[in-house]
Amino acid sequence: MVDVGALVAELGDDVVVTDAERTEKYRWDRANDPDAGVPLAVVRARSTEDVQTAVRFAAAHGLPVVPRGAGSGLSGGASAVDGCLVISTERMTGIEIDPVTRTAVVQPGLMNAQVKAAAAEHDLWYPPDPSSYEICSIGGNIATNAGGLCCVKYGVTTDYVLGMTVVLADGTAVQLGGARLKDVAGLSLTKLFVGSEGTLGVITEVVLRLVPKQRPPATLVATFPTLDSATAAVLAISSRLRPSMLEFMDGPTIRAVEDMTHMGLDREAAAMLVIQSDEPAGHAATECELIEGLCEENGASEVFRTDDPDEGEAFVVARRNAIPAVERTGTLLLEDVGVPLPQLGTLVDGIADISAKREVTIAVIAHAGDGNTHPLIVFDPADTDMAERAQTAYGEVMELAMSLGGTITGEHGVGRLKRPWLGDYLGPDVLALNQRIKDALDPQGILNPGAVF
Amino acid sequence: MVDVGALVAELGDDVVVTDAERTEKYRWDRANDPDAGVPLAVVRARSTEDVQTAVRFAAAHGLPVVPRGAGSGLSGGASAVDGCLVISTERMTGIEIDPVTRTAVVQPGLMNAQVKAAAAEHDLWYPPDPSSYEICSIGGNIATNAGGLCCVKYGVTTDYVLGMTVVLADGTAVQLGGARLKDVAGLSLTKLFVGSEGTLGVITEVVLRLVPKQRPPATLVATFPTLDSATAAVLAISSRLRPSMLEFMDGPTIRAVEDMTHMGLDREAAAMLVIQSDEPAGHAATECELIEGLCEENGASEVFRTDDPDEGEAFVVARRNAIPAVERTGTLLLEDVGVPLPQLGTLVDGIADISAKREVTIAVIAHAGDGNTHPLIVFDPADTDMAERAQTAYGEVMELAMSLGGTITGEHGVGRLKRPWLGDYLGPDVLALNQRIKDALDPQGILNPGAVF
Repeated sequence: MVDVGALVAELGDDVVVTDAERTEKYRWDRANDPDAGVPLAVVRARSTEDVQTAVRFAAAHGLPVVPRGAGSGLSGGASAVDGCLVISTERMTGIEIDPVTRTAVVQPGLMNAQVKAAAAEHDLWYPPDPSSYEICSIGGNIATNAGGLCCVKYGVTTDYVLGMTVVLADGTAVQLGGARLKDVAGLSLTKLFVGSEGTLGVITEVVLRLVPKQRPPATLVATFPTLDSATAAVLAISSRLRPSMLEFMDGPTIRAVEDMTHMGLDREAAAMLVIQSDEPAGHAATECELIEGLCEENGASEVFRTDDPDEGEAFVVARRNAIPAVERTGTLLLEDVGVPLPQLGTLVDGIADISAKREVTIAVIAHAGDGNTHPLIVFDPADTDMAERAQTAYGEVMELAMSLGGTITGEHGVGRLKRPWLGDYLGPDVLALNQRIKDALDPQGILNPGAVF
Repeated sequence: MVDVGALVAELGDDVVVTDAERTEKYRWDRANDPDAGVPLAVVRARSTEDVQTAVRFAAAHGLPVVPRGAGSGLSGGASAVDGCLVISTERMTGIEIDPVTRTAVVQPGLMNAQVKAAAAEHDLWYPPDPSSYEICSIGGNIATNAGGLCCVKYGVTTDYVLGMTVVLADGTAVQLGGARLKDVAGLSLTKLFVGSEGTLGVITEVVLRLVPKQRPPATLVATFPTLDSATAAVLAISSRLRPSMLEFMDGPTIRAVEDMTHMGLDREAAAMLVIQSDEPAGHAATECELIEGLCEENGASEVFRTDDPDEGEAFVVARRNAIPAVERTGTLLLEDVGVPLPQLGTLVDGIADISAKREVTIAVIAHAGDGNTHPLIVFDPADTDMAERAQTAYGEVMELAMSLGGTITGEHGVGRLKRPWLGDYLGPDVLALNQRIKDALDPQGILNPGAVF
């Protein structure tokens, strides 16, 4: 075993934690990977320099490095590896906002919600909004190219990343891009690091593009008697209009949320859509009226509309709480498959078939407007047969998505849990292309080994 | 010299052109690089397979490959290299639009304007709009991550590229991404190829994201007695509002455009701004009123507003014609430097100083809202002393931009003309990082040698 004494001596025992009791909580992210390893030490970096020191030490001793934000990942990308250095960015939480260039320079440990709050002080907005935005770090968002609810209109994380500081596998820190909307000097390295899940470098600072604050949205909630009527409505809306949110919950999800919130959701509904428009005053109401018509044409059993942002937000919160609500009913395997929108109905029906065949509940929530679904496979880990069936269903859902021209992960990342399916999804040539870049940037293979690659 | 007979035999002499008279026009792009070489042959590819065949031939014989779209590049990225295969995509002009997923699958030889027109048939819009949009190919746009006038509100080319087919240096064709807004399975390779200027592969098909058609814009034109008053107005507008276009022309440009168009522009003005708002009806007029106020507060000598899109378009056309108009006054060295917006005034003033010092006219146009300027250095190539002074000024403008935290190229690309400055701009570590990726993907160095790297 490598002696980390020299690293402790250099950075101090407040930064380099080796006590097993204190490092325990850094072993898992929210994917609860049962195979998570035991780190040699956790480096609670305060700065880019601390990260450089830690990576140099790891490179010198051939230690695996697992970068870690808030540990809210759902694909096991931040699971520890035996004998690794976990580099946690939790203490790096600085932010500076320039309202003139509409940019923010942010350290990776800040929560997404804190970035939004800091931008809001200048009447600005950082759009990307994973459901976990209050507990996920901006660094993790960028490492996974996180999505969220607003993506249907406002795009994903990479669309808002203009630059970054990243520590490479040999400890060199480089600055890529900057506070400029246009910059084509050299390869688009900033965009390459977005979504690289800690396998190419450790991101220690980012420059984000902000936009003017979002207008108060109008909200529409519609319930449907069948899955097909709901997915048909999604397609009808998406081909004509451009809502700022278009979310889907199926019956099991609705009932789990209602059990938790008692807000009066319709327990009999097969599906519910939560839709928002943030067009300027007057135009938002018009858009919602058109959406109401499309929901009714497609067989909605009930439609509720409100221009009151707070009243609307209650339904969005219900949607955001879907994962914790379903989690109350059992242990979850969280899926994240996406398909081209016209295949959404086929995907949702196929998931219901898998659920019936494997005799496990699969509650489906979806960022329906962009075809990204989160089937939540519920199982009891004490029931080994059921746990196996859940695992089988997990793979079958990905295979179904691929057969429909879809992806195995829309926004959570490959991490360690989805790696076995990546080769099938990408095919050998694209996988090899990924590997060539990985090998070029991390020849020792010390950066987040086991994740993605 | 390599005998291309086998390639002609395989693809036909209609595809593989070797006749010097016919290959002559493929030597230059619009940068008119005096060092452009003479190609061995031009491959007028009809398909991805043709490109693969050509690249395999080049790889087998160690021939340089210069990918070429419409040849409208301004940095010499498509200048031929002695003994190369030029691979022209001019015959690959297919397009398919899916209005439900709001995506287009496009071959690279189609003009940007044709992509826009095809999208418009479905009430959809492909925003990126280089001034040359009628004569530049979509493949070239993607290879350079092209910008344009609408970027200030709608972002740059990469923000609209969801996937592509690309032929790698060994002739393998890979499909990256696809018609999905969210896909994080594997590295963000699609985004890496955007802006890679033909140095990593030859793009043979792209999947583009479209958005609902733009609303008819309201237009405002303001003239200013000094450069400082105009750049101060830009800053005031940008920090409060979000126009869909915010363009700048200086005095020499205004006069050149007026000489060409006789549309009645103010020859005495030191600067002119052309600004549009595409907010929904009513809101656009309000935004333009606010902008008028900010222009007047900052010393505008005259402001003209119109809600008539055709009347507004006349001024936009005037702006788009600025380069050809200034080109009538002499040979141009086209600059493309960008700075963080608060530095715009300092940059414009500094360019005026360089112009005075080097005794060459530098007409400045700018996508002012995103800090991207195009100083047009005018010289007479027959006057060797002047040509040298122009070349000196060309470098000094880039050095000035760098000193202000800016970039040497915002949207045109590095190509061959700006390569001498790339190392200074990126610094040794980032340059080395670029080179590692280049070497990993093109170990023989056959793809567009001399461009960028």
